Amino acid sequence: MTENERRRRSVLQEFSRSEKRGVYKAIYRRRDVREHFSPQPISDRLLHKLLDAAHHAGSVGFMQPWSFIVIRSQEVKEQVKKLFGRANDAATKVFEGPRRELYSRLKLEGILEAPINVCVTCDPTRNGPHVLGRHTIRQTDLYSTCCAVQNFWLAARAEGIGVGWVSVFDPDELQTLLWIPGHVIPVAYLCVGYVSEFLSRPQLEIVGWLPRLSLDDIVFDEHWGDKNAK
Amino acid sequence: MTENERRRRSVLQEFSRSEKRGVYKAIYRRRDVREHFSPQPISDRLLHKLLDAAHHAGSVGFMQPWSFIVIRSQEVKEQVKKLFGRANDAATKVFEGPRRELYSRLKLEGILEAPINVCVTCDPTRNGPHVLGRHTIRQTDLYSTCCAVQNFWLAARAEGIGVGWVSVFDPDELQTLLWIPGHVIPVAYLCVGYVSEFLSRPQLEIVGWLPRLSLDDIVFDEHWGDKNAK
Repeated sequence: MTENERRRRSVLQEFSRSEKRGVYKAIYRRRDVREHFSPQPISDRLLHKLLDAAHHAGSVGFMQPWSFIVIRSQEVKEQVKKLFGRANDAATKVFEGPRRELYSRLKLEGILEAPINVCVTCDPTRNGPHVLGRHTIRQTDLYSTCCAVQNFWLAARAEGIGVGWVSVFDPDELQTLLWIPGHVIPVAYLCVGYVSEFLSRPQLEIVGWLPRLSLDDIVFDEHWGDKNAK
Repeated sequence: MTENERRRRSVLQEFSRSEKRGVYKAIYRRRDVREHFSPQPISDRLLHKLLDAAHHAGSVGFMQPWSFIVIRSQEVKEQVKKLFGRANDAATKVFEGPRRELYSRLKLEGILEAPINVCVTCDPTRNGPHVLGRHTIRQTDLYSTCCAVQNFWLAARAEGIGVGWVSVFDPDELQTLLWIPGHVIPVAYLCVGYVSEFLSRPQLEIVGWLPRLSLDDIVFDEHWGDKNAK
């Protein structure tokens, strides 16, 4: 066996069967949580652990463009909830007939019920102006920030903590409310807390808003459009 | 104990200690891989498993905007590599002095060495035009696609498979090359393969391109700027 092959084998044995299972379990059981939040506080230590997991996402040119605003104050949450209310009223009107009726029955956020809210931001100027790998695709800093959000989401799931991503706001209003500087982009607003339940499937799938796509229909071979069910 | 509390406790016991460890291990040991790829093929079954993990990311309004182009052909890879070469030559010139010298020594992609390349795209028109939750922040479909990429990356890590995200291309050239329709956005180009080694820390940290930020410096309380080391 060559040295390379020996190394490759040891890489393959790095994750035990149950460690691997944990990764897929977090991926498949993660939900966008809007209800079932419990008021039970999250310890500073555990929150730090989740934020550190987010902080260990990859980032373009290792720029680490993210920051995290941790909101616990009822007053700030209520202000955010008002922004949501305004944007949601406008959004409702976009849908028509039974779809509008279904939309208005959906609970789309748990801002007040979740003990912690976290706003994840992206600073495109951090470690700039020239960021390795960002010259041709300018928004790769936003992409990196989303990878950090997903790390947070999965680590939280493994800890029994629900996370709900709320995107129904005017981002400028949110920026002003949270004193976020003009050049920094609020990417995600997360409601975070222990929950009594994770739904077995996504809420919008359960209520029939949209079906899960078949993976076969969205995988192509070599070029777009060369369908091959793999 | 109330029914809610019983449920909450059972949620907390859902992940065993080693399943939890697996999640953090994947998060902390994931690397943006550009070298040490092995030609060993990845089975269709395993690739399907990784793509299905990506497909189970959350998406705004459950729109599932992603598609995956799986590239195995040496010819297509060589064409992509040419696009990289052109964009990389231009990028090198942006840096000056020792930084340019360091940049030009870095290996930033493993397009030809990785047995599989995967281009992950986002179709903003899918399940549209009105996507639940996307009215105020238009690019949430891109954000969802990045969450799918992170799922793929972490599942691959647990399987001993390295993934490198290459962003040094003109995206329009990549779009044409892979026959991607004009309205669909190529978000990520991933080099995927078994590896003989995962670096202990990110490549750009090891070579001194940039240091890891302290988490304390990027976490705020209640509003941007209210520093509190947590």
